[in-house]
Amino acid sequence: MEKITINPKTVFVHPMPMVIVGSMVNDTPNFMAVGWVSRVNMKPPLFSVAIGPHHTIQGIEAHKEFSINIPDVSLMEKTDYCGLVSGSKVDKSKIFDIFYGELKNAPLIRECPVSISLTVFQTISLPYNTLYIGQPREVFTEERYMTGNSLDIKKINPFTLTMPDNNYWAIGENLGNAWSMGRSYTSDTKQPEPSGEDLE
Amino acid sequence: MEKITINPKTVFVHPMPMVIVGSMVNDTPNFMAVGWVSRVNMKPPLFSVAIGPHHTIQGIEAHKEFSINIPDVSLMEKTDYCGLVSGSKVDKSKIFDIFYGELKNAPLIRECPVSISLTVFQTISLPYNTLYIGQPREVFTEERYMTGNSLDIKKINPFTLTMPDNNYWAIGENLGNAWSMGRSYTSDTKQPEPSGEDLE
Repeated sequence: MEKITINPKTVFVHPMPMVIVGSMVNDTPNFMAVGWVSRVNMKPPLFSVAIGPHHTIQGIEAHKEFSINIPDVSLMEKTDYCGLVSGSKVDKSKIFDIFYGELKNAPLIRECPVSISLTVFQTISLPYNTLYIGQPREVFTEERYMTGNSLDIKKINPFTLTMPDNNYWAIGENLGNAWSMGRSYTSDTKQPEPSGEDLE
Repeated sequence: MEKITINPKTVFVHPMPMVIVGSMVNDTPNFMAVGWVSRVNMKPPLFSVAIGPHHTIQGIEAHKEFSINIPDVSLMEKTDYCGLVSGSKVDKSKIFDIFYGELKNAPLIRECPVSISLTVFQTISLPYNTLYIGQPREVFTEERYMTGNSLDIKKINPFTLTMPDNNYWAIGENLGNAWSMGRSYTSDTKQPEPSGEDLE
């Protein structure tokens, strides 16, 4: 079918994972909804979050600490609220039950299935957003979100985001095993040699 | 319920969007499956991809161009294959129907619902991975993947990835409007002022 071109500024990742970034701004825990988040390094584990000129940045810059919390669908409305109002105008410290690990300026959300405290590893100023590369120091979850030694996305029950249509989406059915099903494609080609990163 | 801590190196984004990164290595189009991808800047639009020491990097470094292609579920096996074998051992240029926009070293995949050609805006060396910040130059899609002026994730029908359990997942049901539903949380708090980025 014929290809068309669309404006690059209207293209986002499909879908975006939805997290809540926590920071401590002037001694008040603040929370922001963020869909621009990614794992970016294997060893050590590093994550990136891209944040616009928002209130949250003050806390990250001041303490070089922040948190990434993965909300489940029951927290969708509260998460969306965190994305609608600025901590400069509304105190968001009462929305969630907050706890702390070793990093006292990385407020964690008890209701979230997964909460990660991070220290800033590197800061990259982009033309509009700031890209914070964070190194996770502690990861908190609960037994009920695990299957074996691994977090289980169906137990976590997170939601995802699309833009610019602005919709939230559930996780659908399991489609099969990654870094595995592609072996069947190789029948008429050379033998594959797995190149996936190991987690050792 | 009681919190437990898990090893930070076993934590990834839930879920990861799955894309195919294309590059031109020694005059041969090469493709790699990548789940570490994110939009990172509003104006201009910028995307990040975090890539380990793989064959793909040679092409990106040589030409400062690459592509991001969003595969649908019908391409899941081929995508997985691209993640299992290295372009240093297998010619992956015959897997897909390739086309080009203005960037002649950013091979695009015709079968993918969305194909983006990018120039390298910035390169960030992390301890293991390299984070390429790319600026999209052209975005190709087809009318059948659009609803109005927006890409429609249910028409695109992409799949997502979880690690370290290594599973692919479909997109589930629509859960409601983003940057909107949180307004109902504000009944007992102050009036919200939308802080979402505009797309001007």
